[in-house]
Amino acid sequence: MKVQSPPGMRDFYPEDMRLQNWLFDTWRRVSRSFGFEEYEGPIFEYLDLYTLKSGEGIVSELFNFKDRGQRHFAIRPEMTPTLARMVAARANTLPRPIKWFSIPRMCRAEKPQRGRLREFYQWNVDILGVEDPLADAEIIAVAVEFLRQAGLRPEDVVVKMNDRHFASELLTRLGIPPGSQEHAFDLIDRQEKLGVEEFSRQWNEAYGGQPPAEELVEFLEKELTSSTFYELVSGRVPDAVRDQFNGFWDSLKALGVADFCEFDAKVVRGLAYYTGIVFEVHARHLPLRAVLGGGRYDSLTKLLGGPRVPATGFGMGDAPVLELLRALGRLPEFGEALDVFVIDAGPEYFGAALNLVGDLRRAGLSVDFSYKRTGVSKLFKQASARGARYAIVVGAELAQRNEFTVKNLLTGRQELVAADRLRVGPRMVLEML
Amino acid sequence: MKVQSPPGMRDFYPEDMRLQNWLFDTWRRVSRSFGFEEYEGPIFEYLDLYTLKSGEGIVSELFNFKDRGQRHFAIRPEMTPTLARMVAARANTLPRPIKWFSIPRMCRAEKPQRGRLREFYQWNVDILGVEDPLADAEIIAVAVEFLRQAGLRPEDVVVKMNDRHFASELLTRLGIPPGSQEHAFDLIDRQEKLGVEEFSRQWNEAYGGQPPAEELVEFLEKELTSSTFYELVSGRVPDAVRDQFNGFWDSLKALGVADFCEFDAKVVRGLAYYTGIVFEVHARHLPLRAVLGGGRYDSLTKLLGGPRVPATGFGMGDAPVLELLRALGRLPEFGEALDVFVIDAGPEYFGAALNLVGDLRRAGLSVDFSYKRTGVSKLFKQASARGARYAIVVGAELAQRNEFTVKNLLTGRQELVAADRLRVGPRMVLEML
Repeated sequence: MKVQSPPGMRDFYPEDMRLQNWLFDTWRRVSRSFGFEEYEGPIFEYLDLYTLKSGEGIVSELFNFKDRGQRHFAIRPEMTPTLARMVAARANTLPRPIKWFSIPRMCRAEKPQRGRLREFYQWNVDILGVEDPLADAEIIAVAVEFLRQAGLRPEDVVVKMNDRHFASELLTRLGIPPGSQEHAFDLIDRQEKLGVEEFSRQWNEAYGGQPPAEELVEFLEKELTSSTFYELVSGRVPDAVRDQFNGFWDSLKALGVADFCEFDAKVVRGLAYYTGIVFEVHARHLPLRAVLGGGRYDSLTKLLGGPRVPATGFGMGDAPVLELLRALGRLPEFGEALDVFVIDAGPEYFGAALNLVGDLRRAGLSVDFSYKRTGVSKLFKQASARGARYAIVVGAELAQRNEFTVKNLLTGRQELVAADRLRVGPRMVLEML
Repeated sequence: MKVQSPPGMRDFYPEDMRLQNWLFDTWRRVSRSFGFEEYEGPIFEYLDLYTLKSGEGIVSELFNFKDRGQRHFAIRPEMTPTLARMVAARANTLPRPIKWFSIPRMCRAEKPQRGRLREFYQWNVDILGVEDPLADAEIIAVAVEFLRQAGLRPEDVVVKMNDRHFASELLTRLGIPPGSQEHAFDLIDRQEKLGVEEFSRQWNEAYGGQPPAEELVEFLEKELTSSTFYELVSGRVPDAVRDQFNGFWDSLKALGVADFCEFDAKVVRGLAYYTGIVFEVHARHLPLRAVLGGGRYDSLTKLLGGPRVPATGFGMGDAPVLELLRALGRLPEFGEALDVFVIDAGPEYFGAALNLVGDLRRAGLSVDFSYKRTGVSKLFKQASARGARYAIVVGAELAQRNEFTVKNLLTGRQELVAADRLRVGPRMVLEML
């Protein structure tokens, strides 16, 4: 019987894994350059952690199960609840600010269909314990630095930013009071995905045509994408909100990332827990999903039973960012990388070849050899096929003069090297060739 | 409401994660130095993948669930079935040998109790497509190289090795024919865990006292730990088996790892799919679980619907190896590592300080600063608390002479550095201080 791979889940063969590791390594390096520290949590949590935050409606979107003790768990669909739980558990002892990142794998019980993944990875970066919008600017700066290192420029991608306070003011002005806005945020967030017709239907159903969906859509499409709206609406929110947003803009400029950023009133984020600045990263000229979404969520730890801890952060999925790089033709390419392939010139030298392999590996080089005894020219072919930079031949020269033949496979240059010299400082000897 | 962390699952706060990352990085580095390539699979598989290999009895040990399409899945309890499925799916196109490693997270539905984890990581290293016991020797050599790099020596740990063919010969000699040996392997594997009394009870129940459990235990405890048994039994197995095992020993010596290895007839491994050489790594003087277990499994891909692919490999759990290092007092310790902490000498310099932060991060340094404007001496304390190697003060010197004050926090040495010099080659400037 042949067992298939589960639908919507990915197998990473070595060539896929090299790309995945490049992405993870870059995420890690950029996070650390900003002083973020890595954390992790369990692959599943108590189901309560998600229903508490998102309501019972979320259960059908989760892979959930009970253990023999009837405890009800769900595979994590996002990392923020875990982060909030971990911070709440040590809220009194963790030094502030808390600058953490993680690269969790997570699952959502999507209906299996083309292009929809049930399992994915996400780069999560968060700052907790800081009210200052400087933290929001740092969060955006770390995202932008990754985009830069991935070869993306302001012509390719844009960070679209808004503040829930502004969005709330807009809705209030349109006749939807703050207490009824949660569903409106969700609908506006999904507007493009739904399309005009379905959006209008759902909007009018929820708000009885007050205001009419058409008016809102027109507003969102035309006036709101320009920063003139920011001028307009910022005059109507409390001074503190406006000043905070302006300070945030100044910090983005000082950190050198403002060229990637734009105000966009259409960005509101769907999740209920956002409380302030929100943002998304989109491709400028391609109709792709958002690469990243995030914002400020100051009440989540409190909702999960801890004290209030101000927080801001984002999640960037692995699939959307690789999809964007692929669409732009900017995916990096990697072959297998081996430092040395050791070749025995005949079976009588194989013991000595294995010896050398062991020595070079202990010196930290990546080294391989053939498990089959075969001719030297075939072994040179294997060395090239494996992407080795050097081939070292163990043969008669070793027996006669205690030397190896070392060949640089990139330049073709070949030299006899004293065995002792190679053993003492292999890296130096090879680099000189 | 306060949501707890699920029982038996671990939260990795940054200090835990640093240790975990050291372990993962070392696993990766050692794997690559042996020419292994990384792969990954999905966190859950079709339940069939496990029942096919281990029978229906395994279901209660797995976290399993159905999706809305009534597909039955289980979170992976081990990686080998996934590996075998992936290799079987591309058996005709993957270049041989297949030298792969992975660091999967996996779950088992253990009863929650102290010291028993429901979620853990495992370093899996496998060679597929090679019959030659040279592959088994390579697999052991990569494990030993990790042990060495973790600071373990032959006095601390031992690789205990056996061959299922020898174990089978022993059982045959004791009156248990090959067709009835599977359960015997499982019992012998669990002998120490069960204790003499329970082992005897189960043994006598299964085999009706033929041979009596006492005889077997005595045999295992006394004669079988010495390599004299190897001499004894190797005379009774086919020449090919004996020659293979001797060749395996020679390869271990050539690769320079034989000082870690011993023959031990008690090691048989419990899983049904092992077909040849088997091995475990144990602490020499501490009563701990095995750190690693593995062996040859030549029939697994066939069982999963693919062609027969000879294979050998091992899995090393993260918890047992960290437990061993902890017990020996050899756990490495890591603090937070920051290259530079930038200090503004007053709020009027904060914009310039942020600018410098952005420049240094883009140059690849890990850099942080305080989100709160406060006094310089407090900021120096924060710099030290964060483990920064250098502090750079942005103050009057910048305005007056375009210079920063750079202080090496390890040596206390302090210098004025031209702003342009620092921006052009920050790493070089800092290293000279």
